[in-house]
Amino acid sequence: MAEPHERAARREGERLAELGRRRGFFFPSYEVYGGVAGLYTYGPHGAALKRHVEAAWRDRFTVKEDNFEIEGPTITPKAVLDASGHTDGFDDMLVTCPSCTASIRADHLIEDHTDVEDAEALPPAKAGTLITEHELACPSCGTPLADEPVESFNLMFETAIGPGDGDPGYLRPETAQSIFVEFPRLAEYARSSLPFGVTQIGTGYRNEISPRKGLIRVREFTMAELETFVDPDRNDPPLDRVADVSLRLYPIDAQRDDGTAYREESVADATDAGIIGDPWIGYYLGVARRWYDRIGVDGDRLRFRQHLPDERSHYASDCWDAEAEIDGDWIEIAGFAHRGCYDLSHHAEASGEEFTVFRPYDEPIERERATVSPDMATLGPEFGTDAPSIAAALEELAETEPGAFADETVLVSVDGARFEVPVDATGFTRETVTETGEHVMPDVIEPSFGIGRTVYTLLVHALETDVVDGEERTFLALDPSIAPTTVAIFPLMDRDGLGEQARDLAASLRSTGLEVDYDDAGNIGRRYRRQDEIGTPYCVTVDYDTLEDDTVTVRDRDTTAQERVAADELPSVIKALLAGDRSIGADG
Amino acid sequence: MAEPHERAARREGERLAELGRRRGFFFPSYEVYGGVAGLYTYGPHGAALKRHVEAAWRDRFTVKEDNFEIEGPTITPKAVLDASGHTDGFDDMLVTCPSCTASIRADHLIEDHTDVEDAEALPPAKAGTLITEHELACPSCGTPLADEPVESFNLMFETAIGPGDGDPGYLRPETAQSIFVEFPRLAEYARSSLPFGVTQIGTGYRNEISPRKGLIRVREFTMAELETFVDPDRNDPPLDRVADVSLRLYPIDAQRDDGTAYREESVADATDAGIIGDPWIGYYLGVARRWYDRIGVDGDRLRFRQHLPDERSHYASDCWDAEAEIDGDWIEIAGFAHRGCYDLSHHAEASGEEFTVFRPYDEPIERERATVSPDMATLGPEFGTDAPSIAAALEELAETEPGAFADETVLVSVDGARFEVPVDATGFTRETVTETGEHVMPDVIEPSFGIGRTVYTLLVHALETDVVDGEERTFLALDPSIAPTTVAIFPLMDRDGLGEQARDLAASLRSTGLEVDYDDAGNIGRRYRRQDEIGTPYCVTVDYDTLEDDTVTVRDRDTTAQERVAADELPSVIKALLAGDRSIGADG
Repeated sequence: MAEPHERAARREGERLAELGRRRGFFFPSYEVYGGVAGLYTYGPHGAALKRHVEAAWRDRFTVKEDNFEIEGPTITPKAVLDASGHTDGFDDMLVTCPSCTASIRADHLIEDHTDVEDAEALPPAKAGTLITEHELACPSCGTPLADEPVESFNLMFETAIGPGDGDPGYLRPETAQSIFVEFPRLAEYARSSLPFGVTQIGTGYRNEISPRKGLIRVREFTMAELETFVDPDRNDPPLDRVADVSLRLYPIDAQRDDGTAYREESVADATDAGIIGDPWIGYYLGVARRWYDRIGVDGDRLRFRQHLPDERSHYASDCWDAEAEIDGDWIEIAGFAHRGCYDLSHHAEASGEEFTVFRPYDEPIERERATVSPDMATLGPEFGTDAPSIAAALEELAETEPGAFADETVLVSVDGARFEVPVDATGFTRETVTETGEHVMPDVIEPSFGIGRTVYTLLVHALETDVVDGEERTFLALDPSIAPTTVAIFPLMDRDGLGEQARDLAASLRSTGLEVDYDDAGNIGRRYRRQDEIGTPYCVTVDYDTLEDDTVTVRDRDTTAQERVAADELPSVIKALLAGDRSIGADG
Repeated sequence: MAEPHERAARREGERLAELGRRRGFFFPSYEVYGGVAGLYTYGPHGAALKRHVEAAWRDRFTVKEDNFEIEGPTITPKAVLDASGHTDGFDDMLVTCPSCTASIRADHLIEDHTDVEDAEALPPAKAGTLITEHELACPSCGTPLADEPVESFNLMFETAIGPGDGDPGYLRPETAQSIFVEFPRLAEYARSSLPFGVTQIGTGYRNEISPRKGLIRVREFTMAELETFVDPDRNDPPLDRVADVSLRLYPIDAQRDDGTAYREESVADATDAGIIGDPWIGYYLGVARRWYDRIGVDGDRLRFRQHLPDERSHYASDCWDAEAEIDGDWIEIAGFAHRGCYDLSHHAEASGEEFTVFRPYDEPIERERATVSPDMATLGPEFGTDAPSIAAALEELAETEPGAFADETVLVSVDGARFEVPVDATGFTRETVTETGEHVMPDVIEPSFGIGRTVYTLLVHALETDVVDGEERTFLALDPSIAPTTVAIFPLMDRDGLGEQARDLAASLRSTGLEVDYDDAGNIGRRYRRQDEIGTPYCVTVDYDTLEDDTVTVRDRDTTAQERVAADELPSVIKALLAGDRSIGADG
């Protein structure tokens, strides 16, 4: 597989970090106090862009998919994360420099300086051996790390709930658990009818050893997760809705053979051919691909990669990532996991509560059931203190092997000892019961999206440069419906009533629900440049002709073409532009 | 002042908790593991209602007020909260039962069992004395608490950032600090032009000693805060926009004299008369009052109460709360604080960075400035190791007392010792400089809203009971634009094509951006009852007449009146209903 972009592209991240600060998309938090690695603040335009991405996700994965959304707390008691496996398994490998005390992620160190790939899957001891064998050194101070211990470091932020020593709690590593743990109640809201899906958009936390790459590897992030609860015996997603969506797949076999190209397949073909093992995963890959198109992820810089077997999470039986190409690297922006009944069964076991739904049979089933009702007045004198255990053994035997009660006596084992009990004293009977259904523990299919990474991808993929009037211009070709601001209104200057007219126009556009910016600072060229850099698709200028004929100039961000339109038609023109029913001509 | 509601109203909270669970508004989190006090999950309808309240707040306080919104992290390094005063001052008083080890809020214990009001403002030692004097006992086990120590308990959740012991961090107690700490950058985005406002909607945390009262006193909550940065010398909010808004005020003097009624005053009158001391506070009380009307807070159960002097936060020079009446208690649902320059000056001092904006003079000012440029070749040999200190002292003296350089020698003091320096060796000069403006540290006016408490208030104030067809009916009279679902579509039954038609109708309404529920379970009466309880303003039934004449029945939640309308006019009918331009007649 070829690197899709050239070395020049490697500077995208740096250019974006600079643009992000200058234009208020995102910046490192708390810089006046020296900053905290892995914590970022979204400035005005970044927060707006992020909100629009969240709204688009909600529209697609909650509303249109007919799921429901909840909002749970981020503070999570230890019992929940014990059951989910996070207190034990949510670790990274840490090696500490004996000289400068820098904390280093052992797997990153190994991947960066050896041919070993996917070092994250190694056991810590093996990682230690590799560090010693390859004579790896501290990236900060150069001290050799041979024979330094490699330790598991749990990535959850820990806290104490309540006064005194408090109860141990953690900041949730994923929003999913606050859905799973409320399953019994959520199933009631869904009237116990499978499949149903529950979504949540919220904060997740990961106490990274060494955060890096701007918004990509951070300690606090927004996730959008959908937990789909499906009947394990009826695997029938509405595949026809996305059957012909084309996917660029990077399955396990292609990853193992570096010469193999991606496979471009429709959802239907990939699922039929078994490249994607589970139909629900196939369905969501199709839905996600369409959604990425809609919000502006570059289809040529997007692929779906299957997890290698040793890379999968502890809960997943199959998993694919959506990966976006950024600066020549492929970055996970969403995961699609078949979690089976891992989470529900663990919470059921740990809490002792029911995590099932009742599935009615098509028709009631008549079943013979054998029961006992041991006569303790006989068993007691005969077997003494063993009598209660013998009664329990008889109950189990009646359920599992009713034939054993066919003779006059029945043999049971209690703790290795065998007892012979007269059948008359067991109260053995057979009865016919009518069963209307059974309790089923659903499987879970989980599409999980990183919102911050999606926002970052949109910015990187939208960042363009061209030459306008002999000068280089930077602009963000964001989808108009996702851009932080939809329309910017400029008075040519704030005098002779131009400012009033422009402000009135801005207010009337705002009242139609559009996000509108008003700007009268600097010359028009500088104002265009500013709006280009924040990705505003349409700029509208009010000038002296407006006072004469009530027309304004509309300018397109990407083509810089301009056109005069009647001011009172502006709302419908903008609406038509957003719907793609119109474009800006070139008479300006 | 009279209790506005009767004892019967005291059960509102219990009724709502039951409805909240059953209908999916909110419920205690993690109940399968026994729950965690003070943590709640919003179910499907609660999450939708909360989102609508947030959107309405954003529309009012961000968009229409022309402010900008940011989104910062919840994890906050210690340095920030040291400077803001939270590591020292964000405490509650804790007394621990020596027998059952229950943690008890000393001020609540005192308020509940003595005549002392506002015990929160007492010093811990005084609280301990009161507990002893009044012979107060543990509410859990009855053990006397006399002479038990009363301690300050910091209410921030603590955590460690990064591996090893990590750096100390806290979950933010308010969203405000992540705005203040980024002020230098935010001022740039605002082009340093005062006033400007920055909003944030996000999670705040408070490790309550004893959470109680459902959604009212919780450990994790959503806040919506607006920090308005204003020129301290130009106190001119756009008061005319809200001049005639009527406020029910409960100022300090009325609180001190229990016989005094509320004062009903317009914003203009209350500000002119000095009842509200600061015009910006008056402005925001007016904006808030209108907003509460718009979203459905009952105006008869809302008041604005001024903080008593000893109740004010450490940073506030004046503060008013919006309080809603719930179950006979008055609950704070928003605060309006004049924070002065408390936060910015503390962050400036602690970080050493500039937290000011440059305010240009109307006209440049010419000013004489004296400077020195000491000749170290002379000072060094003459004064030895004292020379650098002497040079620094000369610099300061030139600034503060240039007249001291009038003679041939100048006298300076360094650490109490006096030195005589020839003026020739100081390089003393006077020059004329032109200054175009000055650096100003803004004051901060902060309206701060509790979103969860607002949601809870809306539910309590909307909860109504009447009798329909001889049966008691519970319904939520939520504002139609805020209700979780706007329209519910029912097929009379799911057969003969009624289901298809109803689903098509639901889909077409959804495509216009409305939140639509489809329900075909149970008889129509039960479905109405269900929608009444979640506050859906309009129910639409598709029946056999629909197949004949393409009309559907629209039913109004509050009046239960029904009317048949043409199916293809439904979107415009709903739009007119939402706009208040139409009502449902009574021909059904």
